[in-house]
Amino acid sequence: MEKIKVGITQGDINGVGLEVILKTFADAEMFEICTPVLYGSPKVVTYHIKSIESQLNFQLVESALQAKDNCLNLVNCSNDDAVVEFGVPSAAAGKAAFDALERASMELKEGMIDVLVTAPINKSDIQSNQFKFPGHTEYLAQKFPSETGPLMILMNQDLRVALVTTHVPITKVAQTITQTMIESKIKILDKTLRSDFCIEIPRIAVLALNPHAGDMGLIGTEEQTVIKPAIDNMISQGIQCFGPFSADGFFGNGSYRMFHAVLAMYHDQGLIPFKAIAMDNGVNYTAGLDIIRTSPDHGTAYDIAGKGLANENSMRQAIYAAIDVYNARKFDKEIHKNPLRRQFFDRDGKDDKVNLESADDGQ
Amino acid sequence: MEKIKVGITQGDINGVGLEVILKTFADAEMFEICTPVLYGSPKVVTYHIKSIESQLNFQLVESALQAKDNCLNLVNCSNDDAVVEFGVPSAAAGKAAFDALERASMELKEGMIDVLVTAPINKSDIQSNQFKFPGHTEYLAQKFPSETGPLMILMNQDLRVALVTTHVPITKVAQTITQTMIESKIKILDKTLRSDFCIEIPRIAVLALNPHAGDMGLIGTEEQTVIKPAIDNMISQGIQCFGPFSADGFFGNGSYRMFHAVLAMYHDQGLIPFKAIAMDNGVNYTAGLDIIRTSPDHGTAYDIAGKGLANENSMRQAIYAAIDVYNARKFDKEIHKNPLRRQFFDRDGKDDKVNLESADDGQ
Repeated sequence: MEKIKVGITQGDINGVGLEVILKTFADAEMFEICTPVLYGSPKVVTYHIKSIESQLNFQLVESALQAKDNCLNLVNCSNDDAVVEFGVPSAAAGKAAFDALERASMELKEGMIDVLVTAPINKSDIQSNQFKFPGHTEYLAQKFPSETGPLMILMNQDLRVALVTTHVPITKVAQTITQTMIESKIKILDKTLRSDFCIEIPRIAVLALNPHAGDMGLIGTEEQTVIKPAIDNMISQGIQCFGPFSADGFFGNGSYRMFHAVLAMYHDQGLIPFKAIAMDNGVNYTAGLDIIRTSPDHGTAYDIAGKGLANENSMRQAIYAAIDVYNARKFDKEIHKNPLRRQFFDRDGKDDKVNLESADDGQ
Repeated sequence: MEKIKVGITQGDINGVGLEVILKTFADAEMFEICTPVLYGSPKVVTYHIKSIESQLNFQLVESALQAKDNCLNLVNCSNDDAVVEFGVPSAAAGKAAFDALERASMELKEGMIDVLVTAPINKSDIQSNQFKFPGHTEYLAQKFPSETGPLMILMNQDLRVALVTTHVPITKVAQTITQTMIESKIKILDKTLRSDFCIEIPRIAVLALNPHAGDMGLIGTEEQTVIKPAIDNMISQGIQCFGPFSADGFFGNGSYRMFHAVLAMYHDQGLIPFKAIAMDNGVNYTAGLDIIRTSPDHGTAYDIAGKGLANENSMRQAIYAAIDVYNARKFDKEIHKNPLRRQFFDRDGKDDKVNLESADDGQ
């Protein structure tokens, strides 16, 4: 059986990205579950290996097609020799991060790698004429357009949190949220839970926007005018979604454990409890696309870059998660390949559905 | 030594308030640290005792003046015989809650009790011509006007979270927050940490309003125009405050452990992480008033009312906290009673502060 090829970008070379990658593959068992293909610069990677005194070696390859099992394959993405300056944002580091991402995306599109895991970038120094996005999610959404668009999900073993709005100032959150938008996010979430996480009948919790879920309209009306109608409409379409729940109580009393995913209305509402609960093992998964991409839920962590202090657990979980989703999608495809034709039986002779000739063909 | 008299209101009689009070005083040790005075209706309390099969008895008294040590004293606050209907909001229950609160406030004002602990009320059924407030905090702020006004603090042994805005819809949060308002809340917080919690030099963390603390103005500008200037101004006045911090990372990486208190900009930003972290031992403390009032951080919990399922830990902690603040204030008063006159010594003959005649008098 061929191993899953996991493409990994080096991210910002002055941050902790390469450190957590190297630490992850210091554990030889990782090579038993996947074949990693790192996109980056040999010089930079060597510098990082030395700085954290890693015992790991890499194998330079032309592309992921040449990737070998049981070793860390490295695709050289950059002709420039970017110099590592730990903890310092620089245009050269931004360019190195972009080159790796661009090359990895290309090889992902060509099918040379199966999934993509991205190390953190510095969102300001990566900006250029070729990269004008708030982050990976938006870049990938343009590279790999899908019917629904992307949905950002933060997850660990206990909790999946999806966001209706992401990088929106608080003053604009309420006006950005529409019924259509919430319905669309619920639909993507439902679909991704089924196909990417093998959950047959997903239960989705939807959070309120305002304190105390608006307290019957006393503290804001969006619950009644926007969120509840969206939930009702989705329920009528057969999706098991519930709410809107008052966000503080929901996380305080552990209600989140009763649902397969939680849909938060805005960034901090979802990320504050997620990070408070998930600690070091959070994964960011970009749902709603045909490709599979995950990343650790931390940033470049400039303050501890190059010091050997970074915890690699989130990176490891991101790799596990990408592999899990890959397998889940394969399984989902398999079990839905040859659906049985639906059968109807006449019970009282009056049901016109009994006519097998007119019964639908299982789709 | 006389024991501290703790006044406790019965709260909503159809919720879990009386249950958690009775469970707290089922532990005889509680009577060693305080003399409790319950404000409520004998009939209602008896009904609750029976419903949870408590072994506790109460001693009916005219007022807190007659309260005896080592027993649960009960002041009858109501001529009406409100009937308990567990889990059901009713006007009679609202009236019973109000009568208890009104009587307790009166006796607190008269100095018959030392501190006030309130059981949860139903915020909609307590409304009447005499009670037109969103909650206890606003009611007490009017009864006991102070120079600064109240500040809501949620706390447990690890974490204190204060809120700049409380019951404000998300759409109005940004426009409600002003530099003056933040400065005022920082000042109250600093003062309360010193006098009520015996922290000599409090360190206060101030949260940002927007995701990623506004990302240098890309996601909102309030950090730069409102919050940072407020922090800088308070620092120049000698208060140790820091920020604005991106809220998700702040709670995710445990930074909150390095500060004595956290000032959140809005309800859910503070309460989501607090409830996620504090679990069953959260206490709501109304700082900024001359009186001392605490309450458990949960609500009426109608869904489990009368079933004996409620956890009394938060109520117990609320009583402990009220007693601690009472002692801290007494101690603070004591140590600041006779301050030493400040002394200045002339080191090089050029310091005009050397003139003892003109030195300030220690205030």
